Amino acid sequence: MQMKSVAIVGVGLIGGSIGLAARGRGGVERIVGIGRSRKRLERAVEVGAVTDIVCLSDDLQAGLADVELVVVCTPVGLIVEQIRQLAECAQPGTLFTDGGSTKASIAKALDGPLANDCRFLGSHPLAGSEKTGVTHARADLFEDRVAMITPTKNSREEDVERLATFWNSLGAKVVRITPEEHDRAMASTSHMPHAVAVALAASLPDEFVKLTGTGFGDTSRLAAGDPDMWQQIFLDNRKHVGDSIRRFSEQLQQLADLIEDADADALDRYLTQAKKRRDALGS
Amino acid sequence: MQMKSVAIVGVGLIGGSIGLAARGRGGVERIVGIGRSRKRLERAVEVGAVTDIVCLSDDLQAGLADVELVVVCTPVGLIVEQIRQLAECAQPGTLFTDGGSTKASIAKALDGPLANDCRFLGSHPLAGSEKTGVTHARADLFEDRVAMITPTKNSREEDVERLATFWNSLGAKVVRITPEEHDRAMASTSHMPHAVAVALAASLPDEFVKLTGTGFGDTSRLAAGDPDMWQQIFLDNRKHVGDSIRRFSEQLQQLADLIEDADADALDRYLTQAKKRRDALGS
Repeated sequence: MQMKSVAIVGVGLIGGSIGLAARGRGGVERIVGIGRSRKRLERAVEVGAVTDIVCLSDDLQAGLADVELVVVCTPVGLIVEQIRQLAECAQPGTLFTDGGSTKASIAKALDGPLANDCRFLGSHPLAGSEKTGVTHARADLFEDRVAMITPTKNSREEDVERLATFWNSLGAKVVRITPEEHDRAMASTSHMPHAVAVALAASLPDEFVKLTGTGFGDTSRLAAGDPDMWQQIFLDNRKHVGDSIRRFSEQLQQLADLIEDADADALDRYLTQAKKRRDALGS
Repeated sequence: MQMKSVAIVGVGLIGGSIGLAARGRGGVERIVGIGRSRKRLERAVEVGAVTDIVCLSDDLQAGLADVELVVVCTPVGLIVEQIRQLAECAQPGTLFTDGGSTKASIAKALDGPLANDCRFLGSHPLAGSEKTGVTHARADLFEDRVAMITPTKNSREEDVERLATFWNSLGAKVVRITPEEHDRAMASTSHMPHAVAVALAASLPDEFVKLTGTGFGDTSRLAAGDPDMWQQIFLDNRKHVGDSIRRFSEQLQQLADLIEDADADALDRYLTQAKKRRDALGS
């Protein structure tokens, strides 16, 4: 079922790309951009990511009239409180989702009915960049990317289907997963790799800054991400991230032992196995 | 002083790119491609990376006649032996260099005069890719990249200048460094990051392969590199690589502690500092 009107709270890289994709291939007519800064919302209108704008200090009830789906794309530490507040002003039965990189604590806080019989169902599109802001938003950001939807036992099947249809309409492949499984998976595939890139950037001695090549650049690229956003993700998923860093450190120590012991055959096997795994992911 | 005739041993990604750049902006007239496989050398002629080809089983003396500089771009474990053999067939006074990712053991083995009064002076261009083979060679691979030259106390200043002029002519910025300093620096800026990417790829559980995004892709990209080539680099520079992995692991452990202890302020400082360092490197 085609949606006619969607609101996006926080129109940065992800929110802006949702707007562009929803207006383009998604065929949504009205996209309401909601945020704190009118200037930034106006920029979102300029790039075509939203059609209407509402400041958080404006009359939200008027802004949310007719809106069927609200997608909250703010840092994970703000999502719960913002959805609770917006539900107070939304029309009855509005579906809320988010784009946050953690899901368990958010799903737990928002499980069950919200004000005005609004409901929450978490999402997380696996797309992004170390770049931020609506000027980097792209209509094809979700094309062939995975978008995870994280129902709980209280979620309604019709909401899961509406949300899946929405993400599909932006070009994404939908994966259904519990909020807890989501956070465990993301610790391994996203949060720990981010920590690794950050520690790598931090470990670079001043004297060698001019001697880095494309390899160091690729491996440390994520460290350019927004510190505030990542602080919240790390703290929210700290148990799984800690476990995942420990498992990674054991792998790295194994590899270091093979190198320092000059165990040529085992080293070759390790490198060959890792290459196979990496090649399977594509570029 | 413009060179007229250069030989390249091992015409893959690096050797092929040297050939393309030397013929193009470098203005070298004759590029002799030397290797084991005639078929691969013929491919190098097709893409324009070399003008002449000589198999290692051919008459090398005829092939090396008039050649002023021989650039050996084979895996680090082969370089010393190949240069010793080629010097036997080279004209007196030929300068040899290489493109290997380690320098200390090679410089030590080849220090002082070789057969026919040939001389070796190490190089290492900081350019490359996880892709291999002459079909990926590019004339602009060295453009604005650093090429390190690693003289020893026995190196002749005229050789350093000739070699620097050669790399400059391919578009590279030349950095002079001792072989030992080179290996210590590369452990931090290239070899350890490679080990990190390899361990990251190896640590990915099967069940999560489909849940990786661009972040995991970037951070693990180097793991797609050639296992045989990297086995040799790791073994040759194992002491520095081991030290560098230990320093990195301490950094990562520090970060993990901040996350697990939920030390929000210190975590924010760490992430901000790492971002600053990463931003300074460019894309």
